[in-house]
Amino acid sequence: VDTQFLKQAWDEIEQKKPLIHFITNYVTVNDCANVVLACGARPVMADAIDEVIEMTEDARALVLNTGTLNRRIVESMMAAGKTANERKIPVVLDPVGVGATAFRKSMVRELLEAVHPSVIRGNQSEIAYLGLENGTQSGVDSAPASSLAAKIEDAKTCAQRYHCCVVSSGKEDVITDGNRVILCSNGNEMMARVTGTGCMGTALLGALCGTSGQGTFEEAAAAAAAIGIAGEMAADQEGEAGLGHFHMGIIDAVSHLTGSMLLEKAKLHEEL
Amino acid sequence: VDTQFLKQAWDEIEQKKPLIHFITNYVTVNDCANVVLACGARPVMADAIDEVIEMTEDARALVLNTGTLNRRIVESMMAAGKTANERKIPVVLDPVGVGATAFRKSMVRELLEAVHPSVIRGNQSEIAYLGLENGTQSGVDSAPASSLAAKIEDAKTCAQRYHCCVVSSGKEDVITDGNRVILCSNGNEMMARVTGTGCMGTALLGALCGTSGQGTFEEAAAAAAAIGIAGEMAADQEGEAGLGHFHMGIIDAVSHLTGSMLLEKAKLHEEL
Amino acid sequence: VDTQFLKQAWDEIEQKKPLIHFITNYVTVNDCANVVLACGARPVMADAIDEVIEMTEDARALVLNTGTLNRRIVESMMAAGKTANERKIPVVLDPVGVGATAFRKSMVRELLEAVHPSVIRGNQSEIAYLGLENGTQSGVDSAPASSLAAKIEDAKTCAQRYHCCVVSSGKEDVITDGNRVILCSNGNEMMARVTGTGCMGTALLGALCGTSGQGTFEEAAAAAAAIGIAGEMAADQEGEAGLGHFHMGIIDAVSHLTGSMLLEKAKLHEEL
Repeated sequence: VDTQFLKQAWDEIEQKKPLIHFITNYVTVNDCANVVLACGARPVMADAIDEVIEMTEDARALVLNTGTLNRRIVESMMAAGKTANERKIPVVLDPVGVGATAFRKSMVRELLEAVHPSVIRGNQSEIAYLGLENGTQSGVDSAPASSLAAKIEDAKTCAQRYHCCVVSSGKEDVITDGNRVILCSNGNEMMARVTGTGCMGTALLGALCGTSGQGTFEEAAAAAAAIGIAGEMAADQEGEAGLGHFHMGIIDAVSHLTGSMLLEKAKLHEEL
Repeated sequence: VDTQFLKQAWDEIEQKKPLIHFITNYVTVNDCANVVLACGARPVMADAIDEVIEMTEDARALVLNTGTLNRRIVESMMAAGKTANERKIPVVLDPVGVGATAFRKSMVRELLEAVHPSVIRGNQSEIAYLGLENGTQSGVDSAPASSLAAKIEDAKTCAQRYHCCVVSSGKEDVITDGNRVILCSNGNEMMARVTGTGCMGTALLGALCGTSGQGTFEEAAAAAAAIGIAGEMAADQEGEAGLGHFHMGIIDAVSHLTGSMLLEKAKLHEEL
Repeated sequence: VDTQFLKQAWDEIEQKKPLIHFITNYVTVNDCANVVLACGARPVMADAIDEVIEMTEDARALVLNTGTLNRRIVESMMAAGKTANERKIPVVLDPVGVGATAFRKSMVRELLEAVHPSVIRGNQSEIAYLGLENGTQSGVDSAPASSLAAKIEDAKTCAQRYHCCVVSSGKEDVITDGNRVILCSNGNEMMARVTGTGCMGTALLGALCGTSGQGTFEEAAAAAAAIGIAGEMAADQEGEAGLGHFHMGIIDAVSHLTGSMLLEKAKLHEEL
């Protein structure tokens, strides 16, 4: 991995302050907005069908998160996503809970038929479902870990199927463009005990994509490292205080994180 | 009270990690999710009519909270609640603000005609309204305290009417199955100055019910003690810092709380 | 400025504990509720068309915030706002993101044709848009600063046009009734890096208006000073910890703020 890339990509967020348009769930929306502000970008949350096209046109990236999906929101995601594709604005998809219900399965399938994401970022069971359409999962959190090899295979299949980059998060994040694979081992197990750490990782990815206007393999790895490092820093500073403080500590850490720190702390290695 | 029950019930949450399905308000939803994660269970928030039945079927308990009600949400609550009843999945109802408007009154009445909750948990005026249908209240917070005897009587009436357990929260929580009564005096007055401490108590109750698959009188008492103790711990640790830190301190405390601590700190006594 | 007013107005919130009805966005709604509780008032969030009229009738002030607008919410804002006007209940409008899309422009225009607010509180570009209908803005955050003189002029134009008080927030808050102008220089630059500090300022203004039943020029200035001072206190206490702790520190500070502190710390001066 060209780790020098990490430093530059992160520091440019603050310099360019891109506007990132979110159509996201109402559970973790506040954290998504705050983590985007903390890294130096500017979030806007808007989901009305009457305005999402215009909002996306003004933004530098579009983040779609299916955490609390309904038909009204899907319609807005469709419209915003198509607009982003036409305008070459990168789209990041976090298919929260896909596989949990028939509704989410069919809505995400329709979304992916109409909209091309630059990066899909989900947990192992979500990515497995999207790749294979035979994944199983209980609720919206990650299924019991299978082998890392299987996780890599699922991520590659998903990336190849949708012609995009994929991040399959977990203890070891798998980042792939369908061909190359990077593993990221940053993170802390307390992160699974705070809602929205995945959504926040996706939000940071949106900020990185909006800065470059791309949505690359390297940006996907940078975002995985960044949220993982933020979790490590929060655990160091706030871990003993408990999960409430740990949660705030993640936002603290993102606000302190610099490109140099990202470069120094990132645990990325390419899987050959 | 069989207080040994407390230890076992609490510690089993972490062991069984039940999935708890919430249809809840958008004000305190993040805190509900985080408190459920902090106690060891797994939350899923989903309210689209297209998927709530399937989500409830996969869950071990269903929590319905009327904080920001509208007709779309009520329809989903109805469908999920009926499914839960058919599948013997416990339902916990937090009738936030019932009595405040004619709409909430009629929606909650319809809900209670179609769905049988294992436990109803509300503040004194909400419970009084449900019991007597002549309660009065201003907004969604608790009415000025009347006598404890009246509060107990209202809770018993509500429990008898709906054939379920009832928690009437406040300085002194009243827990009843319509016959037996337990009082819980855990808590701290700062809790009334943070939004969602009631919702968080209901969320913990959902986690306890989902662990056992029941929704018993004892579980209702355990949840009342648990959130009250969390408030006491937060006040000790964070009270001087102010309400923002106190808020986070409640999540901290739930993440630190063990069955042994619950057993030691619970202030429950049966009213004979 | 009659600064003695500040002390009295702030301390009366706690004494009168007014109920404040919010129809607001789902991004910062939790912070709005908590800041209102922290200052001693009582929030109620309700947006269903079926109940907003009744909820507003029971409240002492109505706060309308357009952060995540859609047609359903606008309809509720219209109904609640008209009711408030009929009942002489003060209305505070935070036109978040107006100017960002044609939809927000037309919805806020319709709202202002039907409902008379006592105070409009927004950032410079929102106020400029409302005053001139030729403002420009990117997304929902403040445009690059133009001159203070221009900002004052825009605020006065907006106030004269809508016959209300106006707060144009920023490094220097401009408060005007269309004739008199007060500048408030409280605040800290970290506030722009946490979502919802503007919404929280508007929430405090709602609490002040609900306490008096008015919505005056002086109350607008008091709210601007209060949220600015809270930001200063949070920066002192929590600034080094990072933006997560700073966020909580704002709520802490509001919970500690007294009328005497407000009087002592407010940096208000009248522009003659």
